[in-house]
Amino acid sequence: MALITETYLRAQLIKGLANPFPVTEGDKLTPAAADFLKERGIPLLRVAPVPSGPSSMQFIPVGVSNRHVHLAPDHIEALFGKGYKLTPLRELSQKGQFAARETVTLKGPHGSLSNVRILGPSRGVTQVEISRTDGFELGVHPPIRLSGDLAGTPGITLVGTVGTVVLSQGLIIAKNHVHASPDEAQSMRLNHGDHILLQAMGERPLIFADVIVRVSPKYSLDFHIDRDEANAAHVSTGDTVQIIHKNAEGRLR
Amino acid sequence: MALITETYLRAQLIKGLANPFPVTEGDKLTPAAADFLKERGIPLLRVAPVPSGPSSMQFIPVGVSNRHVHLAPDHIEALFGKGYKLTPLRELSQKGQFAARETVTLKGPHGSLSNVRILGPSRGVTQVEISRTDGFELGVHPPIRLSGDLAGTPGITLVGTVGTVVLSQGLIIAKNHVHASPDEAQSMRLNHGDHILLQAMGERPLIFADVIVRVSPKYSLDFHIDRDEANAAHVSTGDTVQIIHKNAEGRLR
Repeated sequence: MALITETYLRAQLIKGLANPFPVTEGDKLTPAAADFLKERGIPLLRVAPVPSGPSSMQFIPVGVSNRHVHLAPDHIEALFGKGYKLTPLRELSQKGQFAARETVTLKGPHGSLSNVRILGPSRGVTQVEISRTDGFELGVHPPIRLSGDLAGTPGITLVGTVGTVVLSQGLIIAKNHVHASPDEAQSMRLNHGDHILLQAMGERPLIFADVIVRVSPKYSLDFHIDRDEANAAHVSTGDTVQIIHKNAEGRLR
Repeated sequence: MALITETYLRAQLIKGLANPFPVTEGDKLTPAAADFLKERGIPLLRVAPVPSGPSSMQFIPVGVSNRHVHLAPDHIEALFGKGYKLTPLRELSQKGQFAARETVTLKGPHGSLSNVRILGPSRGVTQVEISRTDGFELGVHPPIRLSGDLAGTPGITLVGTVGTVVLSQGLIIAKNHVHASPDEAQSMRLNHGDHILLQAMGERPLIFADVIVRVSPKYSLDFHIDRDEANAAHVSTGDTVQIIHKNAEGRLR
């Protein structure tokens, strides 16, 4: 329950005002606040209250992932040569992760994509993450999966500077998710495994209706989406999305 | 207010079950229906009731638009020659509209896109519709606009078989919208200018949170989105989205 004033809404304008504007049972708008929204053609969206109580606004920064590859150590050697080590180009938002200077070409049944970034360090299993748009280019249509969930996924061919790796599986479209450290999760009253609704607040008001929260000391607060999702929501890395609803895992309220 | 049974939910499976599943105040789930959703990890989303009364499911077919061009008559001649007429290749879902056999190349400051389809018949003013992804390819970033709303939009260069047209404005990313005939609108209790929330029910549960309804005898029922939106929601032409909320224009409820 909150009193929503025009002053409050004007302050939100800097971050981007949610459209429609989410309100929970018992929220009150001042007449000036109601006019403020009405003038901008912004309707109200009644949502169930966030379990933690007051409808405090909670924002999560967006991290947009372009197509990329995680490589197993033996695949690094197969693509770039015996004993080869990846060269970090820049750090990523998740601690210890980096974009490598090295890239590969992906070859699919219908086409190929060159300069596909490798992310380091190496992993146990090679995994290739593309967008659905990329899939049409390559001629292969992988399922939406969380990282590491590779059973039954299609393969793809990777071409490096000295060799080629033909994967029999490991190609996915990444399922969007929120990363948070335990401290960040606690301060936002989020738990590992929560399903939340996130609203983009730009020119294209889009609600991501089933986003899984993953909490680990390795993580930093970030909403991971791919280029298709970023373009559909007209957001870029560093923009924020707003939590408009939370559900405990598997629990119906 | 509705009684939601397991049988009802099973019948919905064919069309795709909304995730989260929208319910309005007063809706009752049978214990079997609640278990059915719980087993599938589908949470409930409480939404304000559709003004028309019962929370009957309402579906709208998706029409995905790839990048395309509408040409003014003088631009057809400039690109393809004096007195040139477009050749229909196939009919579109909207009556009288066709995809032409002819294509153009779009040239932007950073890159170009070839084989961009022309839609006929000719229009008063030339308009070029691209996705945000296309904009990164071309190096130009047009705003999200409804068709015809071209004031202040950037230009682009079009190359045809005999000539080139340099537009000073007319490049947009299409704002998603629903087309409906007056009969279709009436049967779905939609009005011209309504803002509605539409949920995609595929592998990527996405809610389009502010979709404008346009009603005209020229129109057929269709939810128009671009490739970025289709890929983000993992839907294709012919899939359906579900109306989960309606707002009258500018009216706060």
